[in-house]
Amino acid sequence: MLSWESIRDQKQAQRASKILPEWRIPQEKLASFGDLGAIEFVEKSGILTDRELEITSWTAVEVLKRVHAGEITAYEVTKAICHRAAIAQQISNCLTEIFFDEALERAKELDSQFSSNGGKPVGPLHGLPISIKDLFNVPGYDSTIGLIAWANQPAKEWAVPCKILLDAGAILYCKTNIPQIMMTFEGWNPVWDRSKNPYNLTLTSGGSSGGESALVALRGSFLGVGTDLGGSVRIPAGFCGLWSLRPSVGRISRKGGRALTLGCPGGIYGVQGPMANSLEDLEMYTRVMVNSNQSLDDPDVIPIPYRSIQLPKKLKFGYYTSNGLARPVPPIERSVLETVSAVKAAGHEVVEFNCFEISKLLGLVYALWTADGQIALRDIMKISGEPADEYISNPFLRFGSDEPVFQEPYPDEAVAEVAKWEKGHLTVSQLWELTLERDNFKSRYLEYLNSLGIDAIICPIMAVPAVPHDTGRDLMATLTYTMLYSLLDYSATTIPVSKVKPSDAPLPSDYAFANQFERKIHEIYTPERFANAPLSVQIVCRRLEEEKVIEITKVVRSCLEAGKA
Amino acid sequence: MLSWESIRDQKQAQRASKILPEWRIPQEKLASFGDLGAIEFVEKSGILTDRELEITSWTAVEVLKRVHAGEITAYEVTKAICHRAAIAQQISNCLTEIFFDEALERAKELDSQFSSNGGKPVGPLHGLPISIKDLFNVPGYDSTIGLIAWANQPAKEWAVPCKILLDAGAILYCKTNIPQIMMTFEGWNPVWDRSKNPYNLTLTSGGSSGGESALVALRGSFLGVGTDLGGSVRIPAGFCGLWSLRPSVGRISRKGGRALTLGCPGGIYGVQGPMANSLEDLEMYTRVMVNSNQSLDDPDVIPIPYRSIQLPKKLKFGYYTSNGLARPVPPIERSVLETVSAVKAAGHEVVEFNCFEISKLLGLVYALWTADGQIALRDIMKISGEPADEYISNPFLRFGSDEPVFQEPYPDEAVAEVAKWEKGHLTVSQLWELTLERDNFKSRYLEYLNSLGIDAIICPIMAVPAVPHDTGRDLMATLTYTMLYSLLDYSATTIPVSKVKPSDAPLPSDYAFANQFERKIHEIYTPERFANAPLSVQIVCRRLEEEKVIEITKVVRSCLEAGKA
Repeated sequence: MLSWESIRDQKQAQRASKILPEWRIPQEKLASFGDLGAIEFVEKSGILTDRELEITSWTAVEVLKRVHAGEITAYEVTKAICHRAAIAQQISNCLTEIFFDEALERAKELDSQFSSNGGKPVGPLHGLPISIKDLFNVPGYDSTIGLIAWANQPAKEWAVPCKILLDAGAILYCKTNIPQIMMTFEGWNPVWDRSKNPYNLTLTSGGSSGGESALVALRGSFLGVGTDLGGSVRIPAGFCGLWSLRPSVGRISRKGGRALTLGCPGGIYGVQGPMANSLEDLEMYTRVMVNSNQSLDDPDVIPIPYRSIQLPKKLKFGYYTSNGLARPVPPIERSVLETVSAVKAAGHEVVEFNCFEISKLLGLVYALWTADGQIALRDIMKISGEPADEYISNPFLRFGSDEPVFQEPYPDEAVAEVAKWEKGHLTVSQLWELTLERDNFKSRYLEYLNSLGIDAIICPIMAVPAVPHDTGRDLMATLTYTMLYSLLDYSATTIPVSKVKPSDAPLPSDYAFANQFERKIHEIYTPERFANAPLSVQIVCRRLEEEKVIEITKVVRSCLEAGKA
Repeated sequence: MLSWESIRDQKQAQRASKILPEWRIPQEKLASFGDLGAIEFVEKSGILTDRELEITSWTAVEVLKRVHAGEITAYEVTKAICHRAAIAQQISNCLTEIFFDEALERAKELDSQFSSNGGKPVGPLHGLPISIKDLFNVPGYDSTIGLIAWANQPAKEWAVPCKILLDAGAILYCKTNIPQIMMTFEGWNPVWDRSKNPYNLTLTSGGSSGGESALVALRGSFLGVGTDLGGSVRIPAGFCGLWSLRPSVGRISRKGGRALTLGCPGGIYGVQGPMANSLEDLEMYTRVMVNSNQSLDDPDVIPIPYRSIQLPKKLKFGYYTSNGLARPVPPIERSVLETVSAVKAAGHEVVEFNCFEISKLLGLVYALWTADGQIALRDIMKISGEPADEYISNPFLRFGSDEPVFQEPYPDEAVAEVAKWEKGHLTVSQLWELTLERDNFKSRYLEYLNSLGIDAIICPIMAVPAVPHDTGRDLMATLTYTMLYSLLDYSATTIPVSKVKPSDAPLPSDYAFANQFERKIHEIYTPERFANAPLSVQIVCRRLEEEKVIEITKVVRSCLEAGKA
């Protein structure tokens, strides 16, 4: 049996071999642009032709319009995006499996079908290249989700989302990087290594869909498909200044995506969702997915076709800057407050939304995620001897150890809530108690929402923007900003608002922190360290209100644009 | 602490006291009509006035039409139905908690609101009395679900379905009987005793919503609300010749219904559904429920308003008489085949539907229902010392005993499938494996359904019609006829087709039974023993196709009517 390092080297060499020699960037050029200049480099270094830059600057909706009008071939679009994806890979290490050749073949076929059908597209996504997160099965390629143990086990069947995309005429050309087993918000794994944030290479591009966010931000993809269990689409999208959607469970199929434990009952289910450089692309993608035949292939899909929504002229928003566990760093507060001011200025009503029981949330999520005593995780670790630092040190995964998994610097209340469930393996009875607690939690939030009578919530995605590599593990509890809506199963988008500026000063050094966890968060923040990091907010509607949250996000966008104008 | 018998006597005395003296039937009259004459007795004995008989013969839709037109008061309707419910109780023991007084008060209020609002109903159900299954919480009344241990613990809040019904203007007047903890298809429990089938008092009215089916069949209710975990609406409706709907999980709220284990994750979820004497009543009820604000009160409701369905002129049906575990008794086969002939005669296409993996289904359901090692059940039994024969001997509940729970006469394959999961308590890992197996099972059936391209399935509800009291426990595996669609979460109706006739001869005595279980089923059957038992079939559509299955059931009804004409 090969050592894990040999398997890693083999996989990475395989990946490198999929990049055409003429698409490789010389080392010295790669080192030339510093940590903040990656995006500018791609656009101005001449490594892409003007035409390639033009094509890859289009939104997915624009690509479709032009391909379907016969103004450009799917082949030319695909070649351009593959080239830019290859550049993005070399800059940010965002890809896992690459299949540019097959994509170009398929583009040719689509073009020829287009011609022979008298200019009729085969489906609504005819000719659109789409990138997908590593977990989705593509026959002939691995879905390692960052595990050496799962390398060289090529998938045999298409994941349902891939099948639907292909049926609609899309072109799949690469899979994107994730943290090992996808259970944190940074991007390292022993198979593919770490993804970096194009806005500042010293920062993470987020996770778990962090290869996707880096790729889309570098415009090496028009639209990327991620998954979100506790924030895994929203966080990387937020960290990279993208638009993204977390749909409710069942609205869009995620079947055929690999995970450490499938059939995880009663917990918090992962969902599949898009990220893109344009809100209209999310809308288009969601429309195609929910109007597809996905329920023929996935028994868990809720068959609701895309609904048209009439919003009232005056909307009512709830908002908060802090969820109570820890105050976010100043630029995050600024991004929320700027958004709130913009919607207020446009005449909408805004009221405070006061999160409650966030410590309890932490305990519930911890318990639901680790209810099996992490047996699957331990078993998989034994196979390969691969390093597992990311998850071993991840408090959400360290189950059944002797010391409390959440301890100082976490607030006492949070430590206590988590400790309730630290009993080693749960029994099935305990799991049923737990899911009942989860259900009651959901009911209390529903009641609160009803009492406020709001249309949507404006709030942070995390307490921090994209963090420096390897600083995330002590901040896991700030996942509660996204987790809340995972547990409640609400529909949510992310909207880019601003970037960290030199004027985003840290809190004063004599600030009285509510607890050590809050101090920890603020200790890592300086505007220099987080230079250029995108600032985004979450817009949240109720369960299965995907169309509504998209329409409301459009409204918020207009308000922000009006504010800037 | 009182003995369980004293608590029972107290509860039953309380119930008896809620029936007006003038509504009590003298014992000799009660004994006068034999086992088959209950329905005729109510109609012809003169215990109800002609006007009461007329009113209680209306469908729910007709009641609403007349009350909303001001042709009759809600009070008169309510008084008539309470009187008839009181009669039904004395004949079939179908009620648990009775609140006629409050109902009459509410009817008066509704009438006065109607007058003062110039004849405007307060909601779509204004003035309609509706009966509900015992588990639904009504403030001030017990929801014992047949447990002595839960007697004298009056509920504090309305169950969500009750709340919605009241908001819509309905009148609640009684709760209906169930088997102890609702886990079988016969109706005995130590608190309220046994419900009987109005068509033949020696037979069960079914379960677990068997008080409801007896009450509606005796027209002591226009419309009854039951719940269905593995067949608990469909079986009693079928046993009593009623129309019923099993909606998919989440389409209609069941929140606030008591159960032994709530928060049972990843298993087979119970649903709430109506039964009535008319298909249009089911449609009306479903429309009101799904168009209500139920998702404001229940985080698990899928907000899909009532959809209008355009069926193709020619439908394609799948059908089967046997699901492979055991051949049904001859009248059940006849009812399915008559239905099939009728739809064929009307020009629809019919193909064979071959059930598969029914033994596996039995194992999965058994394991999902007992995954907690029945701890909740054992704990509750300790409290009161109450008898628990029904559930102790129920193979679906006897978990972790030394002998296999399903054994002879069950087929070897079924015994083996169940034995896989007989390991005492499951671990959470095993539960996750189990739910993954369940999901794969669902996918295989979905694929088969896709391959047939059918609109609906016509099939038995059980292998037997309403069985003689206390004969059900050996037949539990015939629950697989309804359970299959519980596990698949498909939408299903029941449609009354015929009754057992003297000519429905048993299989010949030299018939070669496939297995001992099949023999057992057929051994209890004679047309004399099952005299007058209603025969019904299930019509099944896919998940969340409630409107479609209702429309298709209308088509099947027309075909059957045309066949009889």
